[in-house]
Amino acid sequence: MNRRMIVKLVGQVLVIMGLLLLIPLVTALIYREKCALSFVITIAISAGLGGLMILVARPGSKEIFAREGFVMVSLSWLMLSLIGALPFVISGEIPNYFDALFETASGFTTTGASVVENVEELSHGILMWRSLTHWIGGMGVIVFVMAVIPAQNDRNMHVMRAEVPGPTVGKLVPRLRESARIQYLIYIGMSLIMMVFLMAGGMSLFDSLCHMFGTAGTGGFGIKSDSVASYSPYLQWVIAIFMIVFSINFNVYYLILRRQFKAALSSREMLCYVALWVAASLVVLSSLMYHQTGTLSDNVRLSFFQTASIMSTSGFSTTDFNTWPMLAKTTLVMLMLIGGCAGSTAGGLKMSRVMMLWSAIKREFRHLLHPRAVGVIRFEGKTVDSATIQNLYVYFVMYIVILLGTIFLLAFDDFDFETNITAAITCFNNVGPGFGQVGPASSFAGYSSFSKVVLTCAMLLGRLEIFPLIIALNPGTWKKAR
Amino acid sequence: MNRRMIVKLVGQVLVIMGLLLLIPLVTALIYREKCALSFVITIAISAGLGGLMILVARPGSKEIFAREGFVMVSLSWLMLSLIGALPFVISGEIPNYFDALFETASGFTTTGASVVENVEELSHGILMWRSLTHWIGGMGVIVFVMAVIPAQNDRNMHVMRAEVPGPTVGKLVPRLRESARIQYLIYIGMSLIMMVFLMAGGMSLFDSLCHMFGTAGTGGFGIKSDSVASYSPYLQWVIAIFMIVFSINFNVYYLILRRQFKAALSSREMLCYVALWVAASLVVLSSLMYHQTGTLSDNVRLSFFQTASIMSTSGFSTTDFNTWPMLAKTTLVMLMLIGGCAGSTAGGLKMSRVMMLWSAIKREFRHLLHPRAVGVIRFEGKTVDSATIQNLYVYFVMYIVILLGTIFLLAFDDFDFETNITAAITCFNNVGPGFGQVGPASSFAGYSSFSKVVLTCAMLLGRLEIFPLIIALNPGTWKKAR
Repeated sequence: MNRRMIVKLVGQVLVIMGLLLLIPLVTALIYREKCALSFVITIAISAGLGGLMILVARPGSKEIFAREGFVMVSLSWLMLSLIGALPFVISGEIPNYFDALFETASGFTTTGASVVENVEELSHGILMWRSLTHWIGGMGVIVFVMAVIPAQNDRNMHVMRAEVPGPTVGKLVPRLRESARIQYLIYIGMSLIMMVFLMAGGMSLFDSLCHMFGTAGTGGFGIKSDSVASYSPYLQWVIAIFMIVFSINFNVYYLILRRQFKAALSSREMLCYVALWVAASLVVLSSLMYHQTGTLSDNVRLSFFQTASIMSTSGFSTTDFNTWPMLAKTTLVMLMLIGGCAGSTAGGLKMSRVMMLWSAIKREFRHLLHPRAVGVIRFEGKTVDSATIQNLYVYFVMYIVILLGTIFLLAFDDFDFETNITAAITCFNNVGPGFGQVGPASSFAGYSSFSKVVLTCAMLLGRLEIFPLIIALNPGTWKKAR
Repeated sequence: MNRRMIVKLVGQVLVIMGLLLLIPLVTALIYREKCALSFVITIAISAGLGGLMILVARPGSKEIFAREGFVMVSLSWLMLSLIGALPFVISGEIPNYFDALFETASGFTTTGASVVENVEELSHGILMWRSLTHWIGGMGVIVFVMAVIPAQNDRNMHVMRAEVPGPTVGKLVPRLRESARIQYLIYIGMSLIMMVFLMAGGMSLFDSLCHMFGTAGTGGFGIKSDSVASYSPYLQWVIAIFMIVFSINFNVYYLILRRQFKAALSSREMLCYVALWVAASLVVLSSLMYHQTGTLSDNVRLSFFQTASIMSTSGFSTTDFNTWPMLAKTTLVMLMLIGGCAGSTAGGLKMSRVMMLWSAIKREFRHLLHPRAVGVIRFEGKTVDSATIQNLYVYFVMYIVILLGTIFLLAFDDFDFETNITAAITCFNNVGPGFGQVGPASSFAGYSSFSKVVLTCAMLLGRLEIFPLIIALNPGTWKKAR
């Protein structure tokens, strides 16, 4: 195990967080808020500790393998959450450290579940930091390190594989650093385009930045108690569409940039994803029209916005969907489990995993009927090898086991099934709001510190897609011998 | 596809049901109840139709393959449920046919979920038939056909595999018919032993028979509104222990019969199962002692009885556990998912599946860390081949997909999450009671006919372990060419 390389990379990540913390610091200074001091202290700690780690590390060999990749990514994300929570505590705006840790992990993992009961009481600086964590976590910190810091070799594939969501890592171009750069450029480009659309609708710069961060990272922290319900229908549609845009595989945008429109439009994952959005929205719409009052156009906006928000695993809301009829609520829960596309900023099982699992199951049934037939699983025109399928099955089993484990551990708090089950689902899939006591109109504040730590772990396991954290926590990984 | 053999076997099954219906008929005659006529009519239909099918079939070839096995089993169970429902409707005691179908399928699949709101209003004959369906469904009808009807060749392995629960079929002895016979002899023997224990505790013959049928099949239909709460603590302990006994792999009893005590006691599946029973009971007990009043001995009996009832997928109750604290309720839901041992009369995922999946997952993680290591999965001292592991994964994925599908379809009825989720889990795993509106003190009567049909399908899918029904319903199975 190349521990020195791990220390160096985690140090780099912390220095970058120190730099990013300048954004909320400037915000706090502009609004002349007391929380500015908390950012100064955190910058000192983060950049100082990071710099020290880089100095101390001095790796002899730059070689890293799969397990170093898993450990690097896990440690980076743990450190980001642990240190990123400090401004909330130091400023006194979220005084309990476990609450602040939950909020920060919820931010970085782009979950958007909150313990803040009245978000309008937070200062601008803190709100900015809270939303910025979504944007940072959406694309991944380590992908960023790779994009900006030179002299990393292509062994880093192992690191990238551990951070980028999806069953397989699709490098856009052969060189990894180039690939990470293109991804970040697309991310930044689309973020800017969204800013233009929001400000064109009359949203202030501060509000636009926060909502852009929350949408681009598919996070969902709002800056108002009613999330985005009080904004105009135009702004709600802009956010809805960009939530879908940011939860589609970024490969599609790369192909568009390269003017390969036909290839871009033939992405099966994207087509199924958008079809699912329309189908689910229509189910929710029918359910709303059947059970509730309200005009058709209002209900169309409500249902298309909310399904986009849930399936992109963002979690913004334009209404208290906790009061919706059962069919609509159940549809939203199913969408939480599926999540967005691989290679995007979204969470959940991912559309491509669901599609590949479906193909694998179909093949098995064919095999039962025709034992001698040889079935090949294809996805996006390529053959999926049996190791990937094996890995998919294992991922799915672990996914369910972790979900059930989370639900069990939450039972120590005496909430009801609806609350505990949807809290586990919404955190593990990085969505944000659940139902019952953790619905969009309420917060996670009622849970005990123990449950908050459990949910924090679930959010990290969900964002990093299970394997890295479990491997990093396994003592066998740390043994010297290989 | 050898259709004639299928028709012949389904015919045999129907004739046997006609004979078994004599038991409730005699009961009705003894108690001089009007429902006797409904049994006479059903016997005529079942035996008549069955006899006709046997006469018409005249199979040229006796060869059957996997798909014939799946279809035979599926059709037999469908016919049993469809015709077995008639006495309820004809007697007018459950006038709606969909209700009666739900009740009958719930009986044969040994679920024990009921639509009857006040079970004490049913006649003795109907109660006897209701409980007898548990006993018939527990061991399987087709296994019975194989045990009693000669001239079946060993190709019938395919049929047995489709009906006997568990990831692999363990034949007790090389010859299949002999194996089926031994299983039925163990089943009948243990049923008689249980009768002795019940009657020794002062239970009447009628009550003992009904409870023995419900326990042996791990079904759970009671004959009182409060299930078995009003019986003495001795009787409750007898039922609790026999619920566990009947949910342990029958291989263990065969080994005991052959005086191979050491081999019997080293069954990992049994040991883990009993350990889980004790562990789960202690969790429930702690939860009860912390939150509720009541003496220790009462709470010990309540918790050991209820965990035994749920994990054996029987579903009897001695209290309204719907009012229990969340930790106890969540523990019960987890036990519903796991279920009993393979090769027993219990439902659920099965202990051996859970254990093998766990080993497979552990191997995958080892493989991630040490890519060159070759891991072998062993279970009960034997190596598990990769096809079985593959099959396990597929089973698990289908299991979750069907569970989610059932929950989604139930959402058309406007119940809450707790009710819908636990209704789906309890029916699909053949347990019986759920929580919320389908708790032990209530019934499934509130669901629409559509939802009852959905739950009936879930019960059959659960009992036959998914594959047979899906293959039988697939049009491709019925094509002439192979």
